[in-house]
Amino acid sequence: MLNPATRNPLTEEDLYPLFARELCRQELNKTDAWIEIPGPVREMYKYYRSTPLVRAYGLEEALGTPAHIYFKNESVSPIGSHKINSALPQAYYCKQEGVTHVTTETGAGQWGAALSYAAKVFGLEAAVYQVKISYEQKPYRRSVMRVFGAQVMPSPSMSTRAGKDVLTAHPNHQGSLGTAISEAVELARMTPGCKYTLGSVMNHVTLHQTVIGLEAEKQMKLAGEYPDIVVACFGGGSNFGGIAFPFMRHNIHDGRTTRFVAAEPASCPKLTHGRFMYDYGDEAGYTPLLPMFSLGHKFTPANIHAGGLRYHGAGVIASQLLKDGLMEAVDVGQLESFEAGCLFARAEGIIPAPESCHAIAATIREAVKCKESGVAKVILFNLSGHGLIDMSSYDKYLAGDLINHSIGENEIVSNFDGI
Amino acid sequence: MLNPATRNPLTEEDLYPLFARELCRQELNKTDAWIEIPGPVREMYKYYRSTPLVRAYGLEEALGTPAHIYFKNESVSPIGSHKINSALPQAYYCKQEGVTHVTTETGAGQWGAALSYAAKVFGLEAAVYQVKISYEQKPYRRSVMRVFGAQVMPSPSMSTRAGKDVLTAHPNHQGSLGTAISEAVELARMTPGCKYTLGSVMNHVTLHQTVIGLEAEKQMKLAGEYPDIVVACFGGGSNFGGIAFPFMRHNIHDGRTTRFVAAEPASCPKLTHGRFMYDYGDEAGYTPLLPMFSLGHKFTPANIHAGGLRYHGAGVIASQLLKDGLMEAVDVGQLESFEAGCLFARAEGIIPAPESCHAIAATIREAVKCKESGVAKVILFNLSGHGLIDMSSYDKYLAGDLINHSIGENEIVSNFDGI
Repeated sequence: MLNPATRNPLTEEDLYPLFARELCRQELNKTDAWIEIPGPVREMYKYYRSTPLVRAYGLEEALGTPAHIYFKNESVSPIGSHKINSALPQAYYCKQEGVTHVTTETGAGQWGAALSYAAKVFGLEAAVYQVKISYEQKPYRRSVMRVFGAQVMPSPSMSTRAGKDVLTAHPNHQGSLGTAISEAVELARMTPGCKYTLGSVMNHVTLHQTVIGLEAEKQMKLAGEYPDIVVACFGGGSNFGGIAFPFMRHNIHDGRTTRFVAAEPASCPKLTHGRFMYDYGDEAGYTPLLPMFSLGHKFTPANIHAGGLRYHGAGVIASQLLKDGLMEAVDVGQLESFEAGCLFARAEGIIPAPESCHAIAATIREAVKCKESGVAKVILFNLSGHGLIDMSSYDKYLAGDLINHSIGENEIVSNFDGI
Repeated sequence: MLNPATRNPLTEEDLYPLFARELCRQELNKTDAWIEIPGPVREMYKYYRSTPLVRAYGLEEALGTPAHIYFKNESVSPIGSHKINSALPQAYYCKQEGVTHVTTETGAGQWGAALSYAAKVFGLEAAVYQVKISYEQKPYRRSVMRVFGAQVMPSPSMSTRAGKDVLTAHPNHQGSLGTAISEAVELARMTPGCKYTLGSVMNHVTLHQTVIGLEAEKQMKLAGEYPDIVVACFGGGSNFGGIAFPFMRHNIHDGRTTRFVAAEPASCPKLTHGRFMYDYGDEAGYTPLLPMFSLGHKFTPANIHAGGLRYHGAGVIASQLLKDGLMEAVDVGQLESFEAGCLFARAEGIIPAPESCHAIAATIREAVKCKESGVAKVILFNLSGHGLIDMSSYDKYLAGDLINHSIGENEIVSNFDGI
């Protein structure tokens, strides 16, 4: 990662204006294979962890597949998704260091809800910039954040220079995670006692999510199986890395040959159609330059309902792993994702978040291959969250009002201006 | 219970046109203290049971109370509430007996969602009459039912005589559980292969919910405590009975002195302001006559957001227990319920269903008494469901747009025409 001003390798100190110092240390830590979860965070984890590992017998039967399908059910957390796993330590470290306010961006609102609650737990005030299209499509999420006592603004907003610039150029801009990040970063920089927090992409966020895979590893052992394929949806990469990385070390150290499949939306396909390059994490170019697969930091994704996957870039570790062939990526169209979600809901009784539907679609593709080949592979996917606050999306799908979005190569290139 | 036509004591056979035969047997069973859960239902329970028993440290701290507050978290079930506990066995018995279609009513939609999913599990078609005010206030719930493949109609509808009669008299009728029951009962009677199912009130439904209390009993033992007070919200009585009855036997047989507190809405207070009498379970008078506390079967409750508590009567066992002084009841205003719900959400990270907010409010009253007296009682309440699909209600509460509803004695009497 590079300092955007000097283009020198990023240092911990470069990140201090944005994040709690312990998070800066974790972000650039290259030596410790194991970083302990702080006691007060573990105490909070006890409220909902370990989350269940579930054998999806219903889905297997519906598909007629010999595959053994398991899912790690992160939807049972208090706020309904895996995001709380990182919100709690981030809020905790901020509190430890005397921070009084935290700010962040949110797409679908899963991360914003998690941070709002975590802030309340550790006695911090929270301000959340929510991507405008999600703010409007999913009003219940902003209500959740407000019940937890957070302040919620639609982004782009007039409260920051970054937001104003976008609105001046595009008065009807629907927002993107990239723009919302710019706004939150700006607020954190301009406000004493306020730090920025992030729901995905960065190393420390993915680190906090590895509790998912660490638990799943033990639970799979109890079930007497080991996954041949691990699947997760991919926005910035934290839920993917969270479940995949703990298993991936066994490919490297213990001769395992598990495949790791990231499922991204066809409308925002940085892994399958982006380029590996240095790019900014946000629209305005406030963040460090990250070596990653990206569609260009000014790329505005189509208004798909999986708001949490509408992000132009991929976390740097996942990007390098993909480049090195240690993981794979597939893109999934919106209609296929909701078809998979409805099939899963009817088979398993849980309505998945539109984001998680992408993981389910990719899982179904693999399970169907097993049916064709007659090989009973063990597939594990991460059910990153439930979709109970996204029912309007399902309504539109069932009414036939949703379409597939995809992007052309030209669109990507024209949006690219990284280094 | 009396046959409404003959006024003779009800027989199993009287119920056969409505319910699966095994459910009729359970309803009138006076001899068996223990009825086994069928294997296939236990297999489905494994997906989400046992549900967690949680010590509410956050709430205790927020209240500054010496009380030990525990809650049984039924909100982690696939459909977000305890209702699935009875939907699964009801659908199972129907399937066993060759039924092809099930129908029911639903208020807030928790029961309708549970039955829609359970029907799908056991290969049945489901048709749900949803109280019109909830159908409109909570559109996401009908989406949930539709994702599970059920047909959903707002009630009163023009599809039944009972619905038409109400609409003729009151064209803008907002619906009530009593009317929706009439419609579903009529559909079941008129349709070969179709049975009616019920989400509360009746004995067999409460029986299925006792799994909550049986689990809680074992979990409290693991925690090394025994409840001094057990609290649950009260609509028809199944979540209350589910958690309370397994503990209540120890008052009767083992000298325990636990108090059992049912929390009902001030706008629909059959336990605290109703009369013990024979009354119908539905608006049109299709059901057996039940000896119960009731506000009169033509009583139309105010449009509070706790749709699941908008029911005029109380289950017969709970009614008798209240009459005999073995349990207590309190009524809670709408504003107090949401205030309690927000306090709980911020302290525990779970946004409770508006129904469950009533249990929380009653729990808080007891915990505050403990603070005043300095006595550290052990309070257990049932968190019957989460409120993620009820966020519009919270929005209105936070915006100051909700009011308290109450009823006068006159209103109750004028609505009463039981025998």
